[in-house]
Amino acid sequence: MEKNGVALATRAKPNQYKKVIQALPDARFESVGRCIVIERKPLPRLPRKIAVVSAGTTDRPVIEEARVTLELFGNSVEIIQDVGVGGIHRTIAAQELIDPCSVVIVVAGMEGALPSVIAGLISKPVIAVPTSIGYGASFGGIAALLGMLNSCASGVTVVNIDNGFGAAYAASLINREIGMPISGQ
Amino acid sequence: MEKNGVALATRAKPNQYKKVIQALPDARFESVGRCIVIERKPLPRLPRKIAVVSAGTTDRPVIEEARVTLELFGNSVEIIQDVGVGGIHRTIAAQELIDPCSVVIVVAGMEGALPSVIAGLISKPVIAVPTSIGYGASFGGIAALLGMLNSCASGVTVVNIDNGFGAAYAASLINREIGMPISGQ
Amino acid sequence: MEKNGVALATRAKPNQYKKVIQALPDARFESVGRCIVIERKPLPRLPRKIAVVSAGTTDRPVIEEARVTLELFGNSVEIIQDVGVGGIHRTIAAQELIDPCSVVIVVAGMEGALPSVIAGLISKPVIAVPTSIGYGASFGGIAALLGMLNSCASGVTVVNIDNGFGAAYAASLINREIGMPISGQ
Amino acid sequence: MEKNGVALATRAKPNQYKKVIQALPDARFESVGRCIVIERKPLPRLPRKIAVVSAGTTDRPVIEEARVTLELFGNSVEIIQDVGVGGIHRTIAAQELIDPCSVVIVVAGMEGALPSVIAGLISKPVIAVPTSIGYGASFGGIAALLGMLNSCASGVTVVNIDNGFGAAYAASLINREIGMPISGQ
Amino acid sequence: MEKNGVALATRAKPNQYKKVIQALPDARFESVGRCIVIERKPLPRLPRKIAVVSAGTTDRPVIEEARVTLELFGNSVEIIQDVGVGGIHRTIAAQELIDPCSVVIVVAGMEGALPSVIAGLISKPVIAVPTSIGYGASFGGIAALLGMLNSCASGVTVVNIDNGFGAAYAASLINREIGMPISGQ
Amino acid sequence: MEKNGVALATRAKPNQYKKVIQALPDARFESVGRCIVIERKPLPRLPRKIAVVSAGTTDRPVIEEARVTLELFGNSVEIIQDVGVGGIHRTIAAQELIDPCSVVIVVAGMEGALPSVIAGLISKPVIAVPTSIGYGASFGGIAALLGMLNSCASGVTVVNIDNGFGAAYAASLINREIGMPISGQ
Amino acid sequence: MEKNGVALATRAKPNQYKKVIQALPDARFESVGRCIVIERKPLPRLPRKIAVVSAGTTDRPVIEEARVTLELFGNSVEIIQDVGVGGIHRTIAAQELIDPCSVVIVVAGMEGALPSVIAGLISKPVIAVPTSIGYGASFGGIAALLGMLNSCASGVTVVNIDNGFGAAYAASLINREIGMPISGQ
Amino acid sequence: MEKNGVALATRAKPNQYKKVIQALPDARFESVGRCIVIERKPLPRLPRKIAVVSAGTTDRPVIEEARVTLELFGNSVEIIQDVGVGGIHRTIAAQELIDPCSVVIVVAGMEGALPSVIAGLISKPVIAVPTSIGYGASFGGIAALLGMLNSCASGVTVVNIDNGFGAAYAASLINREIGMPISGQ
Repeated sequence: MEKNGVALATRAKPNQYKKVIQALPDARFESVGRCIVIERKPLPRLPRKIAVVSAGTTDRPVIEEARVTLELFGNSVEIIQDVGVGGIHRTIAAQELIDPCSVVIVVAGMEGALPSVIAGLISKPVIAVPTSIGYGASFGGIAALLGMLNSCASGVTVVNIDNGFGAAYAASLINREIGMPISGQ
Repeated sequence: MEKNGVALATRAKPNQYKKVIQALPDARFESVGRCIVIERKPLPRLPRKIAVVSAGTTDRPVIEEARVTLELFGNSVEIIQDVGVGGIHRTIAAQELIDPCSVVIVVAGMEGALPSVIAGLISKPVIAVPTSIGYGASFGGIAALLGMLNSCASGVTVVNIDNGFGAAYAASLINREIGMPISGQ
Repeated sequence: MEKNGVALATRAKPNQYKKVIQALPDARFESVGRCIVIERKPLPRLPRKIAVVSAGTTDRPVIEEARVTLELFGNSVEIIQDVGVGGIHRTIAAQELIDPCSVVIVVAGMEGALPSVIAGLISKPVIAVPTSIGYGASFGGIAALLGMLNSCASGVTVVNIDNGFGAAYAASLINREIGMPISGQ
Repeated sequence: MEKNGVALATRAKPNQYKKVIQALPDARFESVGRCIVIERKPLPRLPRKIAVVSAGTTDRPVIEEARVTLELFGNSVEIIQDVGVGGIHRTIAAQELIDPCSVVIVVAGMEGALPSVIAGLISKPVIAVPTSIGYGASFGGIAALLGMLNSCASGVTVVNIDNGFGAAYAASLINREIGMPISGQ
Repeated sequence: MEKNGVALATRAKPNQYKKVIQALPDARFESVGRCIVIERKPLPRLPRKIAVVSAGTTDRPVIEEARVTLELFGNSVEIIQDVGVGGIHRTIAAQELIDPCSVVIVVAGMEGALPSVIAGLISKPVIAVPTSIGYGASFGGIAALLGMLNSCASGVTVVNIDNGFGAAYAASLINREIGMPISGQ
Repeated sequence: MEKNGVALATRAKPNQYKKVIQALPDARFESVGRCIVIERKPLPRLPRKIAVVSAGTTDRPVIEEARVTLELFGNSVEIIQDVGVGGIHRTIAAQELIDPCSVVIVVAGMEGALPSVIAGLISKPVIAVPTSIGYGASFGGIAALLGMLNSCASGVTVVNIDNGFGAAYAASLINREIGMPISGQ
Repeated sequence: MEKNGVALATRAKPNQYKKVIQALPDARFESVGRCIVIERKPLPRLPRKIAVVSAGTTDRPVIEEARVTLELFGNSVEIIQDVGVGGIHRTIAAQELIDPCSVVIVVAGMEGALPSVIAGLISKPVIAVPTSIGYGASFGGIAALLGMLNSCASGVTVVNIDNGFGAAYAASLINREIGMPISGQ
Repeated sequence: MEKNGVALATRAKPNQYKKVIQALPDARFESVGRCIVIERKPLPRLPRKIAVVSAGTTDRPVIEEARVTLELFGNSVEIIQDVGVGGIHRTIAAQELIDPCSVVIVVAGMEGALPSVIAGLISKPVIAVPTSIGYGASFGGIAALLGMLNSCASGVTVVNIDNGFGAAYAASLINREIGMPISGQ
């Protein structure tokens, strides 16, 4: 990865970072998002913002993994938290912040209903990330994953449970495609 | 059941009704709700309405099974359809119709997110009925069932997949308890 | 939550309580039910009792979570323990204690059969809470959850595994609805 | 099997019987239990009765498969129906009929709670047969199977879903062992 | 939908089309893709092509559902078939056709490995559609779904089993975002 | 339980025993079978032996739990180990030891095939205990449980995973029934 | 496939064969194994026999699919039926027929125990094919599949449920490798 | 096992090795593959190499377990790492190293797609080992296991999750069969 001047290791533990920092003193540790980041030559800035929307604070490690990944790949990020469907008026109010973004990453555990509501509110690509937050019949994120795969709203695609990196990487590919000159087809 | 002057057979088929009608000519067939109903002496009217809320029209057999059951047991019913979370403003507009009711039955397939939004909007008992509508990873209603069991909104209880009767019966018990004189505790 | 003068945090750990007590010295820790409770201005008492019924003592954390929640929201609680279906005469004897209550919360692990028997004995709303007690093919409460969803007795609704809070909150909503003046419909 | 003078084919269809009867005119068809039976030389009568207990009438094919098997292998059978746990007083009243039997086969669908109650009432071997009766989260008998495997009452063993034959065969082996002279150990 | 001058009904059956054609004589039936299409005023053409890649011919209904959806929403479509991972050199040869496209929809049943290989070959958003093609331990598409969710290649997002429409709708939203003027952020 | 002069606590841990021994100094700890046993007045000896058969040594805690339970309830026990189906000639050689027993408890993990072979060799009641031994697709004993429920040999009944106590209790009930005088039917 | 002078279509239906025969009059239909075979230039004979072992007759379609595949690819086949583990002495007697073979394909439904016993008897590669024969908790072959994956005997590899073709193809590859000159490593 | 002069204990822990070394000072510990090996009299060398192919380094314990087992049983081993399907050109480049081998063991976690690609590239027996590497919807290796069982390429057989030993043992049996004189059939 060093060929691009940047490197990213996700799901890193503090003691792994301690080893990395000795060899690569410019490595940075994003403790909440559990990422080790090296950014020697920042990648080119992409033209559009990406929104990362979530219900609560328990999903923060996944949100942060997405944010760190997005920023490393040149995206501006709009973090929108505490807009769960149990307080639907706040969910609706988030629309204004989402509107200028090109892609929306929606992170949700439990019943995983937030992507359906968001995708119903806006006509933009929604990438849903189920999280393992929950207990009992949430089955470590399966309930949220199934909810998202069965979303009644069109335009929702899904990544693996807790895969903030994957959602961010896919969103970044979309954003990069947007920035490309349209020609020659 | 005849001791109460009423009888109800759910999941009945037309040819079963044909046999019943010969022995019991006052039997009625509710074809959409697939119920055979005999109501010789109507049960006493209960004081409060019960709302039956759903997203679309594909869940109609379950909605009708609930409605027929509720009415037979003496409840007035408010049917509220086409308020799925993919069109959240219509969901919110339903609140006005729900407010006078004592209990809300919410029928939903696919990701089963509607009960969470309804329970977030109002402070009333919500009984959620997952339906088997969907395909692929909806697994015949399991996705909706898990979504409802993991609802982020408090106050949601759940019955078996497609069990419109069970939800209505439980709602009716609540409504009956409301009508009882409060004393002697 | 402080707007109501009460607050409740479930699934709290002792060291979380230690932090809370420093900022909010009137916080109370319910160690068995694993709840942190703040009750500055008690909520209005509701008119009817709620029963919490269980088979044994292993389910106590869930029972206590339900009891603490119920009491905080203004309900009187009747705790009825050690009435599992393996000793059915004791189960039946519980009926007398349940009768004055408006709602019955039934907590059960293993095969989760207790709600069926209780709902067959009384005509009241039964909210069933499966617990993760068991081993092997209990699959962390799934056996009990499925048993409750498939109850042969009408009037049973179900919440997530170990969700004593959810059952209590729903029961409390019912009890509150009972206390409301009936008019204007 | 003809070496014993008896033969039994379970899960037989009417057209299969039509073929068998041509070759073996003394074959008998048990249409409810779906068995083809040939009984040229009845097996010796075993000393004790076996009870077959069930909740309702929907499980009749399984009950009949068990009864036909038991009788073919020389057992007297006590059929006890309509004693489901939703009407617990009838369940308890069944005890008197069960007491003289050496083994109890309990057939139950839905939540599969009946074996637990029966095994709590009597101190005899209970063989539980889950049935595929039910819908939604009964998953073709899995809910009943799991309920029985997790029975809170001791002394319950379980066979495959709808396996009336297997339960009857096992019960018959027990009954045969009872009739053996006890010596020479 | 008629407000846009176009309408689309997926999973339509021939006899449903017969009814629709009577009311709406300009309705078109796409028999392989099982769609009823009305296109009174074509939507604006979007600037980039979208690729639909698959292994074999058994997935054709899903591929066609995606194609019809994509074209209705204004996208040019590149269909690339018979490039399954069991013949990896043909898979690689597909890269040339994919390169000018903005998004790649990959349809695959069985082990669902094709999206991983495609996403490793190109740096573009890949939307994976698991299909229910297979038998035994494919579990109606679950094996493919899980394979895609666990893709070792970054940039893959997933929709429900057989959901060609959903993938096409999401791809179309991305393509539309690409066509928007970038400004005002 | 003290009414019978005996008591048994299964799945006990050493530190639980330390507490028990202080209150009940005659309590005995069976460390391999993880049982606390109090046996003040031994129960009457039952007339027939019970065999406990297993493949290897990894299942010993379950075997021991069964043995301790059997002996406490008055049964003589024949322990037969190291006769797994991978060395089928040793399995067959076990028949001689099993023959005098009235019931056979078969303990097996992994594919759980041993009960089928044993039940094919002898005509006696076989109670199968799946164990959680194994890894990967053994799913904590589910593979063995399913194998036993689907046994091709008749006469096999099954208990929960690792439930040595339950198998022994059921076997003991059978043995007691055998010892009863046959009369009065 | 015609480049080798042979072609094979598995899981073919009679009416598919009717169409094929019109275009390719030398096509042969193997009705039990459900295969359409074209064999214009037989493939070279391989040096060793392959055994196909099974318990009963219900698995015949899978056995035949394997046999047809094996013979088409140049293998001699030894079919050994009716050697299920419920009659273990017949299983053992099969060893003599298996010994000259290079590979053993073992086809089994229900608990899938046969491969374990065979692999314990002989030191040869065993390819296990679970079949969907069974009911209830056999889950369409999952019980057999899990049993085979957890075989206590070493040397067993597994293919998909009912995949007689896959097992035969793999066995044929092994047999072909055996026939190759050993040199040049 | 000592009769062959070699012994192998898999899934061994360092402290288990410490005990073994005291009794058997010539025991060797393979720490990455977690095996204790005793090799007093090496087994005869087999004529052909066996390839062990994998995607990354996280699967190393399984790869090493396979390698140690293979070498102990007399096989030469070709280890080929870092050839995952996300970088398909490296996968293809591996073909040259695989070609001289008689059997290919393919170790893969996540979506388990590598065996399909390898089996499509070469016409040799492929034994696939799913690993428990992954998270979320990988379900401890189930995703990879299902992927391999549903491989679109013929000739793939599968062993249990993480079962490097089983794959190596089966491969070794094949290699031994290859070395045998072909005669007397």
